[in-house]
Amino acid sequence: MTWGAIATWRMAHDGVVEALRLLAENDQAGDAVEALIKTVEDYPYYKSVGYGGLPNAAGILELDAAYMDGDSFKIGAVAGIRDVKNPISVARKLSEEKFNSFRVGEGATNYAMLEGFERKNMLTRRAHRIWEKRLEEIRLYNLNPYDGHDTVGAIALDQAGTMVAGTSSSGLFMKAPGRVGDSPLSGSGFYVDSEIGGAAATGLGEDLMKGCLSYEIVRLMGEGLSPQKACDQAVYGFHDKLTQRYGKAGAFSLIAMNKAGEWGVATNVEFTFSVGNEQNKPQIFIANKGENHTTHIEPITKEWLEAYEKRIKAPVE
Amino acid sequence: MTWGAIATWRMAHDGVVEALRLLAENDQAGDAVEALIKTVEDYPYYKSVGYGGLPNAAGILELDAAYMDGDSFKIGAVAGIRDVKNPISVARKLSEEKFNSFRVGEGATNYAMLEGFERKNMLTRRAHRIWEKRLEEIRLYNLNPYDGHDTVGAIALDQAGTMVAGTSSSGLFMKAPGRVGDSPLSGSGFYVDSEIGGAAATGLGEDLMKGCLSYEIVRLMGEGLSPQKACDQAVYGFHDKLTQRYGKAGAFSLIAMNKAGEWGVATNVEFTFSVGNEQNKPQIFIANKGENHTTHIEPITKEWLEAYEKRIKAPVE
Repeated sequence: MTWGAIATWRMAHDGVVEALRLLAENDQAGDAVEALIKTVEDYPYYKSVGYGGLPNAAGILELDAAYMDGDSFKIGAVAGIRDVKNPISVARKLSEEKFNSFRVGEGATNYAMLEGFERKNMLTRRAHRIWEKRLEEIRLYNLNPYDGHDTVGAIALDQAGTMVAGTSSSGLFMKAPGRVGDSPLSGSGFYVDSEIGGAAATGLGEDLMKGCLSYEIVRLMGEGLSPQKACDQAVYGFHDKLTQRYGKAGAFSLIAMNKAGEWGVATNVEFTFSVGNEQNKPQIFIANKGENHTTHIEPITKEWLEAYEKRIKAPVE
Repeated sequence: MTWGAIATWRMAHDGVVEALRLLAENDQAGDAVEALIKTVEDYPYYKSVGYGGLPNAAGILELDAAYMDGDSFKIGAVAGIRDVKNPISVARKLSEEKFNSFRVGEGATNYAMLEGFERKNMLTRRAHRIWEKRLEEIRLYNLNPYDGHDTVGAIALDQAGTMVAGTSSSGLFMKAPGRVGDSPLSGSGFYVDSEIGGAAATGLGEDLMKGCLSYEIVRLMGEGLSPQKACDQAVYGFHDKLTQRYGKAGAFSLIAMNKAGEWGVATNVEFTFSVGNEQNKPQIFIANKGENHTTHIEPITKEWLEAYEKRIKAPVE
C-alpha cells in the first residue's frame, strides 16, 4: 500500500522529510507523526511550537499537543503543559489511557514527570527577548497582541493503512494564562479515521472551535469527496458562515490526506505546508484562497525560502 | 415563535422548570441556559456538578463548563477551574471574548476572580466523605474508580429564535488532576446553530471526544432529520463503530432540540432527562437503547423519583 505525510507550515518540512523516510521503511504512522512533530518542537527558531515557543502574557510558556490514532480513535492530549521537551510524546502516551487521556496544566506536567518524560526549560533567550520587545511595543503603540498562532499539525498514512494525526503549539502569542486553542481539541484541531483520512488545523483556535472543521473535512472525505474538495467546501463554507454570523472570521488553514495518500488544503490566509507520498518527494507549497471556494496552490520559490530563513533567524535587538 | 428547553438527567428538572418560566416571559435563551445550569450547580446533593461535586483523585474539586451562542457561534469554556460558585457563568462571560475564550486551571480561576465572580469552597463535607469512602473501597476491593460522569448539558430556544447550549460538570469521579472530559469541548460536549438546533452530551468524555457527536447531531438536523432521528443515527452509529474499532464504547447519552422546539435523545445506558416547550409542560423522562438504532422513552414513574430522592440524600457513613 501507499504512504504519505502532510503537515502545516514551512517549519514542518524537515519533519515531513523524516516522516516519509520512516514510512518508506515501513514504520508506523504513529512513529512518523511523532518524529515529524518532535523535529518541529526541538528546533529553537520556530517561535510557535515547543522549544523556542513564545511565552504567554505572564511570561510562562504553556504548550498544547494532541495525538489521534485513526484505527482505534484513541486520543491523547495536553494543554498548558510546562517545561516538557516533547509535548507530542506525552499526548501519544496519554492516548493509550482509557480514562484521563486529556490533561491540562499542572496535572499534565506532573503526569509527564511521573511517566519519565524529559524535563527541559523550554523558554529560549531569544523567545524571552521577543516577548519583552512585544510587551514594549504593545505598551508604546497600543498594538493588538495576537498575531502568531502557527500550530504544527500533521497527518501520516503508513503502508499498513493506519493513519495518525498530531498537533503541537505554544498557542496564541501573548495569550492569557491557561488559554487553550483548538490544537488539543478533537474535531477542531485534528481528526482522523484510517478508513477515510485525516485533517488538522492551524489558525485562530477560538474561531476554529466554532466550526469543528477537522471533523467536517474527514466526514466529507467519507462521503467520497477528494481531500481538496473536502477542504474547500468545509473551510470556505465555514469562513462565509462565520463572517455572516460572528462578523469576522479569524485566520485558519486546514490540511487533509485520505487513505489513498491524496491530499488537500484550504486557507483564508497565505499558508505554507509540506507534503509527500510514495510517488512524490516531500515538497513545500504555498496556498492562498482562490475564486469561488477554491484554493490556489503553488510550489514555494527559492526567494521565499531564503527570505523565510533570514526572517526566523534575524537578530532580536 | 415557540420556545423550549431540554437538559440531561433528572437533576436538571428544577432548572428546566425555571428556564421554561423565563422563556415563556420572553427572556433570552442565554439567560435560560445559565439559570438552568446554575440551579444544578448550586444544589448540594448533585455530586457530579458544581457545589457538592466530587473531588479528583488528589482530593481537589476541579470543574468544567462551557457556553455556546447559536446565533454567533460564540463559545466560552473553562476546565479545571476551582472554588468558583458558578462555572457556567464564567464560561458565558468568556464567550464574549474574541481571544482567550477557553481557559484552564489556575488561569481560569484567576480570570473568574478578576471578573468579580463569587469565590466559594465548592467541596461539601458530604462530597469529601463520599470521596474518602471511595478511596477506602478502591484500596480494599480493587474497584474501578470511574463510574460517575453525569454532566448537566442543556439546550434552550427562545421566542426570538436564538438557541444556546451549555454544560457543567465536575468530571469523571476520581479523575486524575487536570483531566478534562468532553463537557468544555465544542462539537463533543455541545454544539448549537440557531438556524438548525443544538445538542449536548453526558457520559465518558474520553469516548465522546472520539466521535464529535454533538456537532454530528446538529449537522444531521441541518440535513432535515428530526432531533430523534439525528440522535439515533449519530449515537448508535458511533456506538457500533467505536465498539468495532476501539473494542468497547463507554457510556454516553445525547440530547437535542431543533429550532422548532422538537427534541430527541439517544443513549447506550439508562438515561433520564427533562424537557418542555410551549406546548408541553416540563417533564422528566427515562430513555433506554431500543432495537435497531432506536430509543425507548417513557415518562419517569413516581416510584423511580422517590427512590432517586432517597438515594441522593442517603446518609454517608
